[in-house]
Amino acid sequence: MTPSQDAAYMARAVKLAENGRYTTDPNPHVGCVLVKDDKVIAEGWTQRAGFAHAEVDALAKTDNARGATAYVTLEPCSHHGKTGPCSDALIAAGISRVVVAMQDPNPLVAGRGLQKLRAAGVEVQVGVLQQEAEKLNQGFFKRMRQGLPWIRSKLAMSLDGRTALASGESQWITSASARQDVQLWRAASSAIVTGIDTVLYDDPQLNARVDFDAVQPVKVVLDSQLRMPLSARLLENAVDVWIITCSDDALKQQKLRDVGCKVFQVGAQNGRADLAQVFKLLAELQINTVLIEAGATLNGALLDSGLIDEWLIYMAPCVLGDQARGLFSLSGMLTMQDKKNLRLIDARQIGPDLRLRYQAKTD
Amino acid sequence: MTPSQDAAYMARAVKLAENGRYTTDPNPHVGCVLVKDDKVIAEGWTQRAGFAHAEVDALAKTDNARGATAYVTLEPCSHHGKTGPCSDALIAAGISRVVVAMQDPNPLVAGRGLQKLRAAGVEVQVGVLQQEAEKLNQGFFKRMRQGLPWIRSKLAMSLDGRTALASGESQWITSASARQDVQLWRAASSAIVTGIDTVLYDDPQLNARVDFDAVQPVKVVLDSQLRMPLSARLLENAVDVWIITCSDDALKQQKLRDVGCKVFQVGAQNGRADLAQVFKLLAELQINTVLIEAGATLNGALLDSGLIDEWLIYMAPCVLGDQARGLFSLSGMLTMQDKKNLRLIDARQIGPDLRLRYQAKTD
Repeated sequence: MTPSQDAAYMARAVKLAENGRYTTDPNPHVGCVLVKDDKVIAEGWTQRAGFAHAEVDALAKTDNARGATAYVTLEPCSHHGKTGPCSDALIAAGISRVVVAMQDPNPLVAGRGLQKLRAAGVEVQVGVLQQEAEKLNQGFFKRMRQGLPWIRSKLAMSLDGRTALASGESQWITSASARQDVQLWRAASSAIVTGIDTVLYDDPQLNARVDFDAVQPVKVVLDSQLRMPLSARLLENAVDVWIITCSDDALKQQKLRDVGCKVFQVGAQNGRADLAQVFKLLAELQINTVLIEAGATLNGALLDSGLIDEWLIYMAPCVLGDQARGLFSLSGMLTMQDKKNLRLIDARQIGPDLRLRYQAKTD
Repeated sequence: MTPSQDAAYMARAVKLAENGRYTTDPNPHVGCVLVKDDKVIAEGWTQRAGFAHAEVDALAKTDNARGATAYVTLEPCSHHGKTGPCSDALIAAGISRVVVAMQDPNPLVAGRGLQKLRAAGVEVQVGVLQQEAEKLNQGFFKRMRQGLPWIRSKLAMSLDGRTALASGESQWITSASARQDVQLWRAASSAIVTGIDTVLYDDPQLNARVDFDAVQPVKVVLDSQLRMPLSARLLENAVDVWIITCSDDALKQQKLRDVGCKVFQVGAQNGRADLAQVFKLLAELQINTVLIEAGATLNGALLDSGLIDEWLIYMAPCVLGDQARGLFSLSGMLTMQDKKNLRLIDARQIGPDLRLRYQAKTD
C-alpha cells in the first residue's frame, strides 16, 4: 500500500466517523475501513454509547477480514468499557495491519491498544491524517488532555455588534436560516450552558430542534443565587437540566432536585460561579463540548477568563444603534493595548447573515 | 459577429475602461476596442479630463479603422466639451459598426451620439454587457440621473461593533492591510467627506496615499458652526478643501478662504448641515463618488437619512467591550420593527480583518 493509498482510505474513515457526530457522546466518534487486496471489504463507525465501536461495527459486516488492513481514525481501545476492547476484536478477526490516524489521549488507552496489536504480531502505523482526526473530536481530546471541555460561545448580533434593543428585545435579529444553523451546533454539543439572566428574560428551551437522530445536550444553568423559577420552560423535561450554583440554600436546592434537576455547587468568584471550576466540573461529568448561549455579562467574563476555545458569531445585516445592548461587558479597556485579540478561522454566509468563527489568538 | 464574440470584445473594453478608474474624474471612465476581420486592431481608454476619450484614444493607435467595428462601454459623446465629439471621430475614421454597452444618461448626450452615428449610416447596437458597464461608473451615472453622487461610508470597527475606546482612542483597530485598502477607495473617490468632530479629534490628512497616478479627492468637512482650526493638517495643502457650513459668519468664512479653502453655505436641519442639500451641492460641483469617513453621530444621521448607497466596513478580529464607542448613534429604536435593514453584497478577508460591503435593502 502506498502512502497516498493509505491517506485515501483514512480520508474515507474520517468521513465515516462523521456519521457519529450527533450520537456517540460522551464517546469520540470514530470511523473504520477494512481493506483487502486494495478493495474496501467493510466500513463502520461508532454507534451510540454502549453499542459497537467503529472497528467492531466494520468487522460485523464481513466474515473475510483475515489478512486485511484496518484504517481507524483513532487508536483502537484496549480496555473493557461498556463494550469489549477493539484491539482484541481486530486480532481475533486476523487483521494483519492497522493504520491509525492518532493515538488515543484517553489515559485508559494511551498507546496500550497499539501495544496489544503489536504484541500480537499486527503491523501498526500511526499518524495518517492526524490533523483531520484531531478535528473530529476536539472536545473529547481536550477533555482527556486538559480535563476541560471544548468551549464554544454562540452570539447573534446586528452588524453594529448589538444583541438586543435597550428594552431587552432580541427576537429576532438573525434570520431563520441562521437560527436553524444554531440547532446543528446544539445537536453537536454535549451541553448548552446559559446564565440565569437569560433564563429569566428569554425563558428558552435550549434543546436541539433537528430532524435527525441526535443525543440531546444537557442544559446547564449558571445560577449563583438559585433564582431559577420552577415555572421555567427549561424544566418542562428537567431530566437533563443541571443547575450550577454558589448557594448552599438546601431548601432551594431540594426544590430543584424535586422537579428533576441535578444541582451542583461550586466556589464563587466576584459573586458569581467560578468559571474555571464550572468547566472542570463539566469535564468530570463527561461533557466533551459546551455551547454557551448567554448575555453580555457572562460573555464578558468568559472573554476575560481566557477559557473560550471558539466564538461562533452570527451577524445579521441590520443596525440597532448605540442605545442597544452590546456583545461583551468588559471593564478596564483603557488603551488599545488592552483590546482582546482573536483570530478569524471561518466566515460564511448563512441566508442573509454571516457566520463568523474566531479562536483565541495564540501568537 | 456572433453575440458571444460581441460580448467577448465588450468584456475587453470593460477591462480597458478600468485603466481610467483613478484618473478620469469627473468624467466617466470608458473603454474602447476596434475590431476588423475578427482581430483587435486598436484599444483605448479615457485619459485624464481634457485629454482623449476612449474612442479617440483607440483611433489614434491605427490608421486602418475603415470598416472596423468599435466596442465602447458607453455611448460616444455628441457634444463639444474639453474635447471634440467622439461620434464625429468614429464617423470620420470610417467605422462601420458601433456596439455600445449602454446609452449615456448625461443629458448632453442621452442618445444623441447614437442618433448621429445612425444618421451617418453606421450600424449601431446597444446593450451588450450593460450591467457590467453600469458598475464601472456608478457615481457618474447616479449624478446624471438623480443629481446626487454615489455615497459610500467607510467604518472601521472591532468585531463587537466599536470604533474607538471610551477615551476616543482608535489608532489602530484594523490592520495595516485594511488601512492600505482604504487608500484605494479614497483614490477612487471624487471627494472624502468628514465631520468637524473627526477633524478636531483625529486631525486626519484625508489624502489618498497610493503609489500610482491618481486624481486626489477633494476633502470636504461638514462644519456647521465653522469650528475648523486654521492649524488643521487638512489645510496644509488647502487648495482642495471645501468647508460646508450653516454659519453665515463672514469673518470666519473669509479666514478659511484666505488659507485656500472653498466655503459653501447650506441650510440647517436639527442644528447640522442638511445632508440632502450637502450631497446635492456636491453633485452640482461634479462630485461623482463620495467616501465618508466620520464618527457615530454623522453615520447615525446618514443611516437615518437613507442617503447612503454603500457601507464599507472593516471588521478587526478584536473586542473592545461595551464601554467603547459604537458605530451608529440612533435614537427611537423601540421595537425590532425599527431596526435598519441592509443587504450584504460582498465579504472578503483583508489581512486578518474582514471587509464587508452593504447596500440599502431594496425589497
